[in-house]
Amino acid sequence: MIRFEEISPSDFFYRNREITGFENPAKACYTIVREYLENSLDSCELGGFLPNIEIYLKCENEEEKRLRIKVADNGMGIPHEKIPYAFGKILYSSKYVLRQHRGIFGLGGKMAVLYCQITTNKPVRVISATPGSEFISYFELKIDIVRNEPNVVKRSKVLNQDNWHGLVLESEFIGDYLLSKKKIMEYLFQTSIAVPYARIYYQDFEGNALIFDRKTDKLPPIPEETLLHPRGVDLEMLKRLIKTSPGMPLNKFLVKRFQRIGNKTAEEISKLANIELDKIVSKLNEDEISRLYQIMKTYPFNKPNVSSLSPLGEAFAIGIKEAFKPEFLAYDIREPSSYEGHPFIVETAIAYGGEIPIPEQNEINLYRFANKIPLIYDSYNDVSTKVIKEINWNVYKINIYQDPIAFFVHICSTKIPYKTLGKEYIANQPEVYREIELSLRKNARVVSAYINKKRIIEYQKIRYRYLKEYIEKIANFACILSGEKFSYIKNNLLKLVEINEVSS
Amino acid sequence: MIRFEEISPSDFFYRNREITGFENPAKACYTIVREYLENSLDSCELGGFLPNIEIYLKCENEEEKRLRIKVADNGMGIPHEKIPYAFGKILYSSKYVLRQHRGIFGLGGKMAVLYCQITTNKPVRVISATPGSEFISYFELKIDIVRNEPNVVKRSKVLNQDNWHGLVLESEFIGDYLLSKKKIMEYLFQTSIAVPYARIYYQDFEGNALIFDRKTDKLPPIPEETLLHPRGVDLEMLKRLIKTSPGMPLNKFLVKRFQRIGNKTAEEISKLANIELDKIVSKLNEDEISRLYQIMKTYPFNKPNVSSLSPLGEAFAIGIKEAFKPEFLAYDIREPSSYEGHPFIVETAIAYGGEIPIPEQNEINLYRFANKIPLIYDSYNDVSTKVIKEINWNVYKINIYQDPIAFFVHICSTKIPYKTLGKEYIANQPEVYREIELSLRKNARVVSAYINKKRIIEYQKIRYRYLKEYIEKIANFACILSGEKFSYIKNNLLKLVEINEVSS
Repeated sequence: MIRFEEISPSDFFYRNREITGFENPAKACYTIVREYLENSLDSCELGGFLPNIEIYLKCENEEEKRLRIKVADNGMGIPHEKIPYAFGKILYSSKYVLRQHRGIFGLGGKMAVLYCQITTNKPVRVISATPGSEFISYFELKIDIVRNEPNVVKRSKVLNQDNWHGLVLESEFIGDYLLSKKKIMEYLFQTSIAVPYARIYYQDFEGNALIFDRKTDKLPPIPEETLLHPRGVDLEMLKRLIKTSPGMPLNKFLVKRFQRIGNKTAEEISKLANIELDKIVSKLNEDEISRLYQIMKTYPFNKPNVSSLSPLGEAFAIGIKEAFKPEFLAYDIREPSSYEGHPFIVETAIAYGGEIPIPEQNEINLYRFANKIPLIYDSYNDVSTKVIKEINWNVYKINIYQDPIAFFVHICSTKIPYKTLGKEYIANQPEVYREIELSLRKNARVVSAYINKKRIIEYQKIRYRYLKEYIEKIANFACILSGEKFSYIKNNLLKLVEINEVSS
Repeated sequence: MIRFEEISPSDFFYRNREITGFENPAKACYTIVREYLENSLDSCELGGFLPNIEIYLKCENEEEKRLRIKVADNGMGIPHEKIPYAFGKILYSSKYVLRQHRGIFGLGGKMAVLYCQITTNKPVRVISATPGSEFISYFELKIDIVRNEPNVVKRSKVLNQDNWHGLVLESEFIGDYLLSKKKIMEYLFQTSIAVPYARIYYQDFEGNALIFDRKTDKLPPIPEETLLHPRGVDLEMLKRLIKTSPGMPLNKFLVKRFQRIGNKTAEEISKLANIELDKIVSKLNEDEISRLYQIMKTYPFNKPNVSSLSPLGEAFAIGIKEAFKPEFLAYDIREPSSYEGHPFIVETAIAYGGEIPIPEQNEINLYRFANKIPLIYDSYNDVSTKVIKEINWNVYKINIYQDPIAFFVHICSTKIPYKTLGKEYIANQPEVYREIELSLRKNARVVSAYINKKRIIEYQKIRYRYLKEYIEKIANFACILSGEKFSYIKNNLLKLVEINEVSS
């Protein structure tokens, strides 16, 4: 007999933790550092604070591989009464709104807490204060996985005398640092490229300390929360919006609940869908809703607005220059685009020479970023890898496998089309593919021009070196042919060579 | 201000449907066919019925790309009162037990229903009868996504006069068949390799019909449900088991709730953990539980039992031979192994020649299967790809990029270490990696021997052809040196060549 069973969301993710980046103690160690850091960065940026983040990794028991992590930030903190849920209840989050976040599943931090708990049986410690808060909250908590509810072990408040704000998280877990150290360091290094306005301090129990100092004080604009673009709305979403707009007539509904719909567009839509403009939306029947949906799928709306996005812009170039000191850098940012109603912006850079290494055999130097976080694992299936492999680089006289050349791709969106809950790689959405390709090609032309000019100059230099060696013979020859004086011709030739050398 | 929000599991997967294989209308079309078929195969096999499955794909509206799928099987069906939940409530499933299934997340069928609903607003139709049932159930239902509850639109029962059992599913969705057709056909073709004991009929609206007839009547043994192996238990699981074993003394608890623990082992564990053997488990304190857990992590238990697994065995070779008619096939099945307490078995095959094609440029012919389903997408990051690329094939005198050679890897487990909810590829678990490598190497030796023998024979043939051409000259020479008659020597030489030709 087949038994049916219901499980809670906590239980589901507990059973399937490998799909969220916790497949083994090495990956878990990497993922915990990453999730805590990304939540901290999100929190600082949303509050408009220049991030100042410290991460400490200690070893509590070498044999058991029991580690302790502590992450402290100067962000928005979490309100006292929300703390148990923010860390102890899965599918409860502040990230389920239309705004660019690093986290989009609202899952990572809780999975980290959950993993710590199931490997060490210890609660997570949370210290938090929101800006202006009179007190600082202290919590120790676990997750009741079967019921998906927080289980508060300890809670208290102390006076916030120094007007501190931010979040400190501390937890213990079984992790393999030996096997994850390299990836963690690489992750921190690449993060510093994407957020040169952050100060990140990292210290492990082996005596390593990484300090990524702030390279600019300019924080990118804070992304705003936006309305839905009508193209991104499916039937379920449309019905939900109708349900939460009781008593609203169609025109008001369209204008108030969507971006890119003004009174005139609303009028046109109502005509096309054959529904009266002032019909109360909660009274629309299934047929009318379906018609409205069809129009929304096909009407030529303006592109989604991008106030909810926060590209890196200038900071990207600063970060790359600081990290690699390239001889030449081409940077490009595309106009906003959208896929299925989700706005996104692609920015790319190609760096040449300087400290850019020659790629390892059959590899390419590709640095992928999404909503300001570096993507380290599983690059082979990523859309950027696909784009780069499918461009014919001979056209640009670039050998991506042998030249000291590196590619940087950043995509920011209210909805990054990740393929995994572990946020490892980006799906091959045609619109995203095209934007990356166009941007890389633009940079490729610039870099190609630079490299070619450089090659020509080097070629010229070699030519003139040869010319100098043979100048006496040539002068001799010219002397016989022209009847001019040898010294006169030689001097003129020498001058010519020197002028060319200088101008090149 | 940051708002926090709780969402239901349905809502979570609705918002993130791209991570479950529904990222665009083409992939959705593929995924729906796949999920319905896999559920059907699971249902037939669990009931011990030779699968007989029919799939029909129709086009309802070409402009809207609105398609209708109907899948009918002869499996176990679903009991009347469970139907609404089995299709209309996410995280409610029969797959959350320790037994080999195709589905392991219990998510695919419901995601298909959900996707159909949000793109067409139509309910799914379900016709079902369990074996021996007096009536046939008919349902039309939707999912209330916000509440994660089924929404039954229609339900009825009719008499089951013909003693039918099985399931018929029918639903409408927006799908791109043009872009998914090739992958669907490939998926069906490869499925027929893995389940040669199934009959699968597929018919689309373009006039294509694929019939995969049954090639053997031998159904693999039905996998059993098993107890947990102690090595696979984490603290959370241990506490759960204790909670559901009230009043049980430690020795009984260990023997009854785990595999591979008998009375003697239980005694040893209790000694090592320093807990009395008859202590009631619900009275264990946190410290004792932690100690018990530590022992379970380190005690040298026997390997997990494999009655819960169902490898393909002979059927695999039959399937491959039918599909590719290779000149030579080497098949190997490994002894059971385990990772983190989950049992698994690897079986691989290498096929050479016949209808095996030369791989496309820079590609390899790799067919991946997991719990009897083919994995089509995202092969680059798969553990099998990694193994094959890291083996030095020169040793076997095989060129994987240019020889007509194909690799087949099947892993079966109560828990396939998938990296995505879309079940596209398998994570690089060290134990899995090793088993695949050992199995492939064993086959490689056999194939290599065959190919080399073939090459030697061909080389010999060429040698003898040359020899024949020069036989007169050689005889002449020998004649002079030995003083024997020319004709005598020539005849002897000819005989020698002919004998060698025959024996080779």
